[in-house]
Parts: sequence; C-alpha cells; structure tokens
Amino acid sequence: MASSQLREEVLQANLDLAGSGLVMGTFGNVSGVDRDAGLCVIKPSGVPYEELTPDHMVPVSLASGEVLAGELRPSSDTATHLELYRAFPCGGVTHTHSEFATALAQARLPLRCMGTTHADYFRGDVPVTREMTREEVETEYERNTGLVIVETFATAGISPQEVMAVLVANHGPFVWGSHAGDSVERAQVLEFLARMECMVRTVAPDAGRAATYLVDKHFLRKHGKDAYYGQR
Amino acid sequence: MASSQLREEVLQANLDLAGSGLVMGTFGNVSGVDRDAGLCVIKPSGVPYEELTPDHMVPVSLASGEVLAGELRPSSDTATHLELYRAFPCGGVTHTHSEFATALAQARLPLRCMGTTHADYFRGDVPVTREMTREEVETEYERNTGLVIVETFATAGISPQEVMAVLVANHGPFVWGSHAGDSVERAQVLEFLARMECMVRTVAPDAGRAATYLVDKHFLRKHGKDAYYGQR
Amino acid sequence: MASSQLREEVLQANLDLAGSGLVMGTFGNVSGVDRDAGLCVIKPSGVPYEELTPDHMVPVSLASGEVLAGELRPSSDTATHLELYRAFPCGGVTHTHSEFATALAQARLPLRCMGTTHADYFRGDVPVTREMTREEVETEYERNTGLVIVETFATAGISPQEVMAVLVANHGPFVWGSHAGDSVERAQVLEFLARMECMVRTVAPDAGRAATYLVDKHFLRKHGKDAYYGQR
Amino acid sequence: MASSQLREEVLQANLDLAGSGLVMGTFGNVSGVDRDAGLCVIKPSGVPYEELTPDHMVPVSLASGEVLAGELRPSSDTATHLELYRAFPCGGVTHTHSEFATALAQARLPLRCMGTTHADYFRGDVPVTREMTREEVETEYERNTGLVIVETFATAGISPQEVMAVLVANHGPFVWGSHAGDSVERAQVLEFLARMECMVRTVAPDAGRAATYLVDKHFLRKHGKDAYYGQR
Repeated sequence: MASSQLREEVLQANLDLAGSGLVMGTFGNVSGVDRDAGLCVIKPSGVPYEELTPDHMVPVSLASGEVLAGELRPSSDTATHLELYRAFPCGGVTHTHSEFATALAQARLPLRCMGTTHADYFRGDVPVTREMTREEVETEYERNTGLVIVETFATAGISPQEVMAVLVANHGPFVWGSHAGDSVERAQVLEFLARMECMVRTVAPDAGRAATYLVDKHFLRKHGKDAYYGQR
Repeated sequence: MASSQLREEVLQANLDLAGSGLVMGTFGNVSGVDRDAGLCVIKPSGVPYEELTPDHMVPVSLASGEVLAGELRPSSDTATHLELYRAFPCGGVTHTHSEFATALAQARLPLRCMGTTHADYFRGDVPVTREMTREEVETEYERNTGLVIVETFATAGISPQEVMAVLVANHGPFVWGSHAGDSVERAQVLEFLARMECMVRTVAPDAGRAATYLVDKHFLRKHGKDAYYGQR
Repeated sequence: MASSQLREEVLQANLDLAGSGLVMGTFGNVSGVDRDAGLCVIKPSGVPYEELTPDHMVPVSLASGEVLAGELRPSSDTATHLELYRAFPCGGVTHTHSEFATALAQARLPLRCMGTTHADYFRGDVPVTREMTREEVETEYERNTGLVIVETFATAGISPQEVMAVLVANHGPFVWGSHAGDSVERAQVLEFLARMECMVRTVAPDAGRAATYLVDKHFLRKHGKDAYYGQR
Repeated sequence: MASSQLREEVLQANLDLAGSGLVMGTFGNVSGVDRDAGLCVIKPSGVPYEELTPDHMVPVSLASGEVLAGELRPSSDTATHLELYRAFPCGGVTHTHSEFATALAQARLPLRCMGTTHADYFRGDVPVTREMTREEVETEYERNTGLVIVETFATAGISPQEVMAVLVANHGPFVWGSHAGDSVERAQVLEFLARMECMVRTVAPDAGRAATYLVDKHFLRKHGKDAYYGQR
C-alpha cells in the first residue's frame, strides 16, 4: 500500500525527532503524506522509539482515516495530522511536547517574530489557537484539534505556507513542512525560537517585534524566487 | 527475606534515577514494596551509586520499620517511604531533589496542571504540603514528613492514584507508582513538567489552568478502562 | 590567491564554532583576513558544516567584495564582515545566532558589564545597535549592517579594540578578534556572559553595573602592557 | 618542598573542576594546604587544563606568599586563597565563575537558604560581600578580596565552618572545604543551589526562607556528632 520509501522516510524522521531531545518517552509523532496514493504514514501509538522498524509505520487513508495495513494502531493524534493534510499544502507533519514551545502553548501566548532567526524560517508570529470547547474535546477531540488549527490560520489570515507551525493552547506545537524530515527540522528551530522568546518576555516584556521590512528581507532571502541564501 | 527479584528491581530503579540526571552525589532514593512479605526494599544511606549491588539494598519491615537483614543503614528517608506505603496503594516510591520540582517546593507553589503533557500523567495539580511545625521536625522528622504528605491529599480531597506525586515544602518531590521503576519514570516526567511550569509562571504569571474537561480527556485517554493510547 | 594556511585556519574556526553549540544547522559564519593580500576568507553560504573542506572557503577582495576564486558563493553576511575589517583593526570575525546573546539583541538591550568575568574580556558594555531603517534593509542590507555597527561604536565612543563584540538589534551578535579562532573563542565567552546577564536582569532588574575601577583592574590584569595574568 | 601527594591531590581537584562544567577556558582555580609545611599548592596562572601535570602545581609560602619552587607563576588569585587559609580552618579552596552563582554575585544577592538541599551542605545563607572600594581594588586587589571575605563573615557572625562559601560582589564564588577535592565538590553543590535560588527568586520573589529548625535538622543530620546520614 504505502511505498517502502515513505515508510522509511517517516521512520527516519521519527528517529531524528527522538534523537533531537524534543520528546520524552513515547511522546511526539511524525507523519508523511503520499497525495497520489491518498494516504499518510504515521508512527504507531505508544511504541518505544528504539523498537520501531519501517513495518511498524501505519498507513492511513487520507479520505477516511482508516488503517490500510497491519495490526498496529496509529498515533492517537492521527486525526489531527489528517486535518492538516486536508487543509494545508504540506508533505509532512510533526507533533512534539518540546519544552519551551509547550510552555508558551500553556501560557497561551504566540511565539512572536522578534528577530531574523525567526524570520529565516517563519514569516511572522507563530500563532496560538483559542481554547477548545467542552464539546470539541469530548467528541472527535483529535479531529477537532486539527480543525481549530485550520480555523486559527483562516481567521487571522496567516498563510500556512509562510508560517508552517502552530501552538495548540494548553497542548503543544504542531509543525509541518515539505516532507516528514523537513517538519522535524522546523520543529527543532521552533523550539530554539521558543527558548529565546521566553527569555525576551522575561527580561523585556515590553520589547516590540522586529520591523516587518526586516522580517520580509530575511524570509525572502532564504525562500521564494529571489532567494540568495545557500548555493544555487 | 526480600526476594532477589525485588532487590534487583530496586537497584535498577536507583541506577536509572542516578542516570537520569535528577540527583547529585548520593542524593535521592528509590524503594519498592512486597506487600505479601510485609516489607519494602530501599537504597542504603550515603553509598555512592556506582558501588551499589543488589546485596546493598536494605529490606525493612513495613509494620515496624526494622531492618530485616544485612549491616547497612537504610536511606535516612525510609520512614517517609513507609508512611506512603501504609496510606497509598502503590508499589514503588522515588524521592529526588530534582532542580525545578525542588525550586517549586522551595517557593511553596504547587505544580499546576497547565496542559495536556501534565494531564497525560497527573489528573490535576501536584500539591505542595504545608510547612512542618518545629515539633514535627524535631521528633520523628522523616515519619512526620510522610504523615504531612498523607494529610495534604486527605485535606484537599486528591486521589493518590490519580496524582502520584507531591512537593514537600522547602524540601522536594516524592513520587510513587505501580513499582519502583514506574515511580522513577514519573519522577522524570514531574521534573519536565516543573521546568515548563516555572517558565509559564515567569512569562505569564496570570495564565489560567487547562480546562478540566481537557485534563480529563487526556488523563482518561491514557489511564483507566476506556483508554485508547498505545497498543492493547 | 588566499594562502592555504588562512583557508585552514578559517575552516578550523568554523568547525570550532559548529562544535561549540552556538549555532544550529548552517547558521553562523567565521572569516579571517589577510590584509597584505587584500582579501578575507569566509565560509560558503548554506553548506553543511560536516561537508566543509579548506577548498570550500571563499576568498573575497577586501576592497571590492568580489569572489577571487572558486565556484561557491560566500556567506550571505560577507558584506557585513567586510565593513568590520575596513573599520576595525581586527584579524577575524564571527557571527552567530547564539541563544542568549540573540535574546538580548531581540530585546534590544546591551550586555551590561556586571562583573569581573565580563571585564576579563570586554572593557565595558557590549552595545546593541539602533534598529535599521527600511531603506538600509531594502538596499545593500548586509553592508548596511556593518555600517550600523561601526556607527554604534563611533557614536558611543567605544573602542573596538577594548570591546570586540556587538549585538545587532533584532538579529544577533558579531564578534571580532586577533584572528578567526580568537573571534570564535570570544563569541563563546559572549554567550556565557549573556546567559548571566539575562539571569541578573530576571532576578535583580535594578542591580547596578560593576564599578569602573573594578572593570579596569580586571581588563588590564589580562590585557595591555601591565598584564600579569598567565605565563609571560 | 610540597609533597608529591599534595601536588597530585591539587592537580586532580583542578581537573575535577574542569570536568564539572563549572569553568570555561582557563577560568577557575583550586588549591590545597599543608599547614605543617607552611605552604599551599595552587594551579599555575593561565595554563590550559589539559596540559597540567603535578609538576605544574605551584607551592607558595603561607606566611609570605613567595613561590617556593619552579618557574611558573601561581594563579593570579593566589593572594585571596592565602587570606582564606590564614583566617579560616580549612584544607582546600576553590574559585570559579560558575554561571548561576556568579549571576547572584553580579546581582549582589546572597544565596538564601530556601530548603533542605541547601541545609544539607550550608547552615544558612551563603553571604555576598560588600563592593570593594577603589583603594582596595587598586592596591593589593587579590589580597583585599580575601580580607573582604573574612570581614563579611566576622561582621555577620557567620561561622566559616558551617557556611563554607561566599559570593564576592560582582565577581563570583569562593568555596572552601576539608581538602582541595572537598572544596570542588561543594562548589558544584553551590552552583546547583544557585540555579534553584535564581528560579525561586523568579517565580516567587516574596517566598520566605526555610524555617531555622528545619535547616538545623538537615545540617545536623549530616554534620557533627549526632549525624545519622550515611554509614558509620
């Protein structure tokens, strides 16, 4: 069903996540999508990282959410990943409870764009969702988590291609990218930015954001058609 | 007296604790209980972790607190462990001076339930005890530490099966679990949560707790008869 | 063109920077200068640290900014390095986005001289630049970054030989030294000082700076003709 | 002159200090004393830790401060160590610029006794000295640093045998112990306590100290004739 290449890529991304220090125990999960085949592949739920093999990766239908092969349950957060794939044009999704990004999510504060390190990866604030309602939590919780993320971007008019991450209130970050490994790398950057943002909020609560023209300069220096960072 | 299996399990849990970075020097101790045999097994006092063998683990009577075998003194905190075993239906106890949990204990602040990472392990705040009185400290100090913990849960109506940890005021955390190793793992989670709680209190002192229905959703998704996290 | 010795020195300094934990991914860059040959040598843009060889190091004309050999683009920050070499009598320049120095830059706060650890390396505050204007950012951004640094020192009357670092507002630190490796070492010290400064600002926002005579004592004990630190 | 045993002990203590993460570069120094021989042995100034051998350790007269053998200069802080040996009944002294203890010294705040982790090692606050005067800094600076430490303990009526450490204002910690290695171990504990104290001051600036009877209980449980911690 799912190509062995996608399984291996998703396994590797999950192992990279485990090695990054962003997750504790079996927390965290990464998926990758094959839009032509109509499926995503995701980590199984609650299996220790050190035991994972490509065959443990669970293929799930993008349309129905059904498990397409194997005996293992997919990550309990699978329905959130699916909503992100349905709404956003991305190839991989990572969810972590990384320390400082989660602290901001618990404080219900956005990760503001305070400088060029941030602007190199995200064109503006990484938003925090509203709190979910009792009904959203008690029925189809994981799916509703995805829908609240999508709502957050639509309401605030943020492009999910320019800001590829969100903080779910009282929960933690979801991050996406062009493929599974790319979303893991961006999750690491997000945590680094969250560390700095927590420190800025501590020592200078009233400091303003970076100027928009500085943010645009750095974002566009690395992304888009006029980029001049790196070797071409 | 104490089965060699329990000794080895308690030794391994103590070594896992030492390897976790939660303890400095000979600080910290883990015990496990055999309720049928009426004893608990605990680390000896002040012996460097790297010298410990199963034979060093000290069996102590659950009823009388007497050492049942060997020449070594048990951990100076043994009487606290015993009171926890007497009052709470648990199989292992871990005591650490881990940095952020101890900082909260020194600040005499509870570890509030601010998000789903916390709710996956503890159903609500991890409480902080009241300060102990002069008399409680000067007479049977370690036993009274245990009694004050038990009092804290009884007074606040907290279930010791849903919140398996406490912060002893001006001292540090005690954590329990189904067995010795489980209490060590929970002590590591507690420290991670304490790190995030300290940061939330720093950047957003007025942020509210996570909604009760969100806490229940996450706690019950991993614990109890309707759990759907992991492989079954 | 550029001596193989300078290429190797600059490569080694870049690898030392990568090993220091001050950079993430391909962030950060180090250069060294050969004033007699009229060139500086700098890291190429966006090449992973682990792939770098001496031949990857890019020689650039100090006068014109032209690449003097090879196919690789130099670091996108090259024009900033060049302005520093033109204005300041130094032999190496390091740029990082190290966590706490960058947090201060994002908070637009100087790294104040609060004690002898600082005074052993920098004679007084490490300043923060003013924000750059839209015009400065949109035209010749990297060159203007260097010019704003030079302006900061001129305006405040700070000696670039006594304070060999700056925080660029909403960006991060630039650090210089007698040669490439020396600037990397100073960048590590800067980050350590920034960690302490953030903590001092957190626990004692009103604490005053170290007395000038104490700063002078420590700076001159290690630097200049009457130094008596180390073996002579 | 100095016994080879003392040289080796002091070398080992310096290497332990370097391995502890408490020092950066060539910062920090440890000495040990032989009171019968009337000398102390200390690290040479500015020699990289990895090059040190027992022969590099510098013997210095306790009475005159003269170097008794060899070609190397002793640590620039030697005169401070000597004043501590003259006034306090200790066998080893460690000086570091460890991060959080130095931050407190820069904030000119004492390390308050907030809990049992502290009381297991220090019976009460670790004090911070007053600022030194211009004259004290400009003439015999290092010796005056020692005299200000001694004055701090005398003025506040603190026993240097119950509180074996001090924070020198705008400088950093000096720590002493029964021998060189013991002072290094205590310097590590001091840094751990300073980390927690900084966090307590951040999240609960008004939290009170631990009760005196709790401090006494823990200090005397580990120290003095009625101690019952460890194996006897």
